[in-house]
Amino acid sequence: MRLLGKQEIEDIAVGAALLGTGGGGDPYIGKLMALQAIEEYGPITLLDPEEVPDEAIIVPSAMMGAPTVMIEKVPSGEEAVTAFETLQEYMGKDIYATMPIEAGGVNSLLPFALAARQGLPVVDGDGMGRAFPELQMVTFYLDGLDATPMVLSDEKGNGMVLNTINSVWAERLARGATIEMGGSVMLAIYPMKGKEMKRSAIRNTLSLEEEIGRSIREAKESNYDPIDEVLKITNGYRLFSGKVKDINRKTETGFARGTAIMEGIHDNKNEELELNFQNEHLIARTKDRLLCVTPDLIAVLDAETGMPITTEGLRYGARCIVIGMPCDPKWRTDKGISNVGPGYFGYNVNYTPVEELIAKGEKIIG
Amino acid sequence: MRLLGKQEIEDIAVGAALLGTGGGGDPYIGKLMALQAIEEYGPITLLDPEEVPDEAIIVPSAMMGAPTVMIEKVPSGEEAVTAFETLQEYMGKDIYATMPIEAGGVNSLLPFALAARQGLPVVDGDGMGRAFPELQMVTFYLDGLDATPMVLSDEKGNGMVLNTINSVWAERLARGATIEMGGSVMLAIYPMKGKEMKRSAIRNTLSLEEEIGRSIREAKESNYDPIDEVLKITNGYRLFSGKVKDINRKTETGFARGTAIMEGIHDNKNEELELNFQNEHLIARTKDRLLCVTPDLIAVLDAETGMPITTEGLRYGARCIVIGMPCDPKWRTDKGISNVGPGYFGYNVNYTPVEELIAKGEKIIG
Repeated sequence: MRLLGKQEIEDIAVGAALLGTGGGGDPYIGKLMALQAIEEYGPITLLDPEEVPDEAIIVPSAMMGAPTVMIEKVPSGEEAVTAFETLQEYMGKDIYATMPIEAGGVNSLLPFALAARQGLPVVDGDGMGRAFPELQMVTFYLDGLDATPMVLSDEKGNGMVLNTINSVWAERLARGATIEMGGSVMLAIYPMKGKEMKRSAIRNTLSLEEEIGRSIREAKESNYDPIDEVLKITNGYRLFSGKVKDINRKTETGFARGTAIMEGIHDNKNEELELNFQNEHLIARTKDRLLCVTPDLIAVLDAETGMPITTEGLRYGARCIVIGMPCDPKWRTDKGISNVGPGYFGYNVNYTPVEELIAKGEKIIG
Repeated sequence: MRLLGKQEIEDIAVGAALLGTGGGGDPYIGKLMALQAIEEYGPITLLDPEEVPDEAIIVPSAMMGAPTVMIEKVPSGEEAVTAFETLQEYMGKDIYATMPIEAGGVNSLLPFALAARQGLPVVDGDGMGRAFPELQMVTFYLDGLDATPMVLSDEKGNGMVLNTINSVWAERLARGATIEMGGSVMLAIYPMKGKEMKRSAIRNTLSLEEEIGRSIREAKESNYDPIDEVLKITNGYRLFSGKVKDINRKTETGFARGTAIMEGIHDNKNEELELNFQNEHLIARTKDRLLCVTPDLIAVLDAETGMPITTEGLRYGARCIVIGMPCDPKWRTDKGISNVGPGYFGYNVNYTPVEELIAKGEKIIG
């Protein structure tokens, strides 16, 4: 157990952008909300999963919707509180702590804003170890936990309690409602007991994000290469260094989908990298080689500062380093791959772990 | 207070088809469910609104969706029970009785099936005095009562509790969810106190339906004209007698929309009647004359048997009598007309009470 203040939140936001693999919503909004809540209510308690009693009720808090909408329709923080209190009343049980459903993007930070307002601790872990676009794309689902009862709340004051036969139906009904409600809503979701959380959560991802953010910050202060630091912490690989040449994106059925093309700089001038994303980066490939495939993590970093760039932040001409990082082993099971592998997202590509793809390639470029 | 058995349900079903003004779903399904429930659990208690205590909780039960879907996806009855029990638990209050939200179609009958199973009485009244396609098209809404908390349940076991800022949002979110859930769901909706029900409900519409059904049955037994009997009971008018010449209908965004054209028989051979419907019949007009406009009731009866025909049951060549009936005075207010008048449904027609339209016409045809 330790207390998180403003510096920790700043660092976590940088790590969240990296593990967000381009998606999960711009952490900036979540950071502002968390910083403001700390300003008002004081530092936040971070609990190691082992510190949570087996029978305590844990409820992740998250925003659902397209990142493009989230930026235009910033939540007040009230929606999350309403969702939480509605679920607490519906279950008739006190909630002991909250946590992120995903490590990555705005959803890593929003639980802090809620926790500060409600005086609740935050559990150091999440259900993805990265960001993904759908509600059933969590280890909680892989481990048979229910997304429901869950609550959706919008900024207008509309609320919805869902009780579905499985998490795929929860995703389907919540997605439809999110679009009706204006494109983004706050959720209280996957209520679970402490012992279920300990069995299923990916642990210590908030501390990992903090370490990533701190390393990038300290590397810049000491003139180290921040990207080397990130690769060390995440067991990652440099995939490509290039310049953004082409970007196509559109928001459809509540998702930000698209493709980015980068052309090589340095000695890979003749190569082009194609990135496919659906909120998050899902596939990185050149004409000849597959470099990294979901559920492994693909992040795009600014070549100068080492700072992560979201898919929304990708601009023509930007110089970037693309890195790949192995995902949590829970995603590399058959059930994991069928839930979040390339086939699920409609790509005719087989999943191969990033370390094997890198070992196969004659040469790591960049 | 009186008990309803099978004959009463048979008669109510006929009256429900008439007040359903072509929509509200084929009462046949609701009748079968109600008859089966009476077979299993015995007769059902019908309460006059005055017999309901002021503080008792009344919750209407209804099916939401397109009639075309209802016919293909018959509910088991379990969905209504689940919706009811979920709402009861959510409110933490016992429900005293149920009632129909609309007089007309399947939704007049479904509350009986629920009531028999649950051992609850049914209140003799409803929120429309006819059928309408949207959740805010009820006197409860005109009188400022909330549609929510409400519960949606589907046949797969998915459930949703809605708590919205107004009934228009309830309609919007429930409609989207209904489509996702396969096109029809069961609702527990507009929970209200006895005193609110007494202030807002349209009274004794179930008894009216029973009287209509009984009169048609007895007229046939005695060789009277059943249509004369119906017009006497409902203060209605003959609008047109004709043969169906053309029918266009499609199911879109959860509604069955369309137009029917009839050509005159008897001395109106040169005239054509156009009927516009959206689940229910909304406008009846000839080339020269407006005959009846929503919220007044338009019903199409079989010329031989006097039995009401739903918009789904209209067939090419069928010989029909079209009648118009004045709606409840609550609908003839400014708020009523703006909610359910022709403008709301997209028709560029002013509302004029059917009795004035008839008085204006030189001649009542048929």
